[in-house]
Amino acid sequence: MAMSEFKAYLGARRQLIQEALMQSLPPVDSYPPQIHEAMHYSLFAGGKRLRPILVLAAGEAVNSPPEPLLPAACAVELIHTYSLIHDDLPSMDDDDFRRGKPTCHRVFGEAIALLAGDALLTQAFVCLSRSEAIEPARVIQAINELAQAAGSQGMIGSQVVDLAAEGGPAELDTVEYIHAHKTGSLIRVCLRLGGILSGAAEEQMALLTRYGEAIGLAFQITDDILDIEGDFQKTGKKTGMDTYRGKATYPACVGLEAARRKAGELCQEAAALAHELGPAAKPLFDLANYVFERQE
Amino acid sequence: MAMSEFKAYLGARRQLIQEALMQSLPPVDSYPPQIHEAMHYSLFAGGKRLRPILVLAAGEAVNSPPEPLLPAACAVELIHTYSLIHDDLPSMDDDDFRRGKPTCHRVFGEAIALLAGDALLTQAFVCLSRSEAIEPARVIQAINELAQAAGSQGMIGSQVVDLAAEGGPAELDTVEYIHAHKTGSLIRVCLRLGGILSGAAEEQMALLTRYGEAIGLAFQITDDILDIEGDFQKTGKKTGMDTYRGKATYPACVGLEAARRKAGELCQEAAALAHELGPAAKPLFDLANYVFERQE
Repeated sequence: MAMSEFKAYLGARRQLIQEALMQSLPPVDSYPPQIHEAMHYSLFAGGKRLRPILVLAAGEAVNSPPEPLLPAACAVELIHTYSLIHDDLPSMDDDDFRRGKPTCHRVFGEAIALLAGDALLTQAFVCLSRSEAIEPARVIQAINELAQAAGSQGMIGSQVVDLAAEGGPAELDTVEYIHAHKTGSLIRVCLRLGGILSGAAEEQMALLTRYGEAIGLAFQITDDILDIEGDFQKTGKKTGMDTYRGKATYPACVGLEAARRKAGELCQEAAALAHELGPAAKPLFDLANYVFERQE
Repeated sequence: MAMSEFKAYLGARRQLIQEALMQSLPPVDSYPPQIHEAMHYSLFAGGKRLRPILVLAAGEAVNSPPEPLLPAACAVELIHTYSLIHDDLPSMDDDDFRRGKPTCHRVFGEAIALLAGDALLTQAFVCLSRSEAIEPARVIQAINELAQAAGSQGMIGSQVVDLAAEGGPAELDTVEYIHAHKTGSLIRVCLRLGGILSGAAEEQMALLTRYGEAIGLAFQITDDILDIEGDFQKTGKKTGMDTYRGKATYPACVGLEAARRKAGELCQEAAALAHELGPAAKPLFDLANYVFERQE
């Protein structure tokens, strides 16, 4: 698949996901309106939809069509969006912009932003529990793994470590913990959900899981690099904020060149795992290169 | 059952629930410690465990033993606890005390309190998805209904309406909406979860649901009354805060006497529904009187 062909694939997937996401929330004018406006505002603020694409691509790698996996793909994006809203709150990172637009609390106020985040997290489980085309026991396993990945020993846990590490010297152990859990937990579980809900074999599950771990860490490192040298026009975020806050990041810890090398190695590892999964994992293979080359 | 016998029943149920709740969270010293300390602090701050007791009593009413329902009972209490933590945050009600103890953010700071709430909500779904003794399709229905009850058109929705109504004149329509959804959604779903997970017949489900609606509204009205005339020693909360904030409450709207009468009628209605469910619903019958007479 040439890069242009892969970009067309991504575009088609995004379209499919966008339509499913519209169905995944109560309509924007549902009562009470403030909360639904805030939920829609943040969910449709222009995300890349990398996580839901990974859910579908993992299913595809083990020969599942995308449609039955859409509720799970949406659930992950709802959780990702809630985590951004809460992360941006004044008591957390106190960010004014996200993807080039004012953050949720800047538009709707802190109380509504807090509740909109809560509601998106809750809605993820409404959504996932509607995976009607899939065997119930698999859906329950998916719910269990998604909740664990998002919880106090996964994504939320790493936010705690991240907060605690802020301002102090960045220790590589801490940075690796944060990365493995913050972006990492949720990206890893995308691959696992695609596999679990498609009934992947044990060996396939192991490859998908390792792919998720490699690509998740690569994604976080490239994120940290973009924070240093990215372009506001492309990233929609102020650059240099991590450094300003004394965040524990990979480049802060090992230097920009070593960070870039590490991201490259991880993407190569992910590509090799996709290759091992076989021809149906071509989109996962291409995604590994895409993550390495991303500029937004 | 005499009242003393019923109090012994409540005590035994609380003990059972307490033990299950201890198992429902990662241990308090799990990494990262701050978040797990905050989660444990709020979950074990001395709640009455009314909601989990209702889940078990609903199951009992349709002849199910309590043990298989414990994950669902814990899930509801985790969601209740998260909602209290977020409600108390400075951007919401800005409360310093809850059940006579400093609120979560007063002890652990705002960021950790926010994340502890998020983590308890997330953990509710870890917990419910572990209902291993129960047919998977029923567990999925329970997850779906719990998430809907807690979401933007249930509990969270009513918090939004509550915030919007603050300070303005209390309209009875608004008050009824808030009550039906805020305390009401979650209490109603307790009864439904007990029924669904026990495989209750359609007619039993209808009775349990109506019981939940009546007892939920009665509980909220008695809560509002206690806010006016309760005793800090018993409630652990400052009294008069709803009036101070201009909250839309039942007594503010119809007067104290009419509110008390309404609570009495609702409890009678609930008792009649319990009677209709049959002898196994005796605890639900006694609970209806207990709610009416509560002082904390």
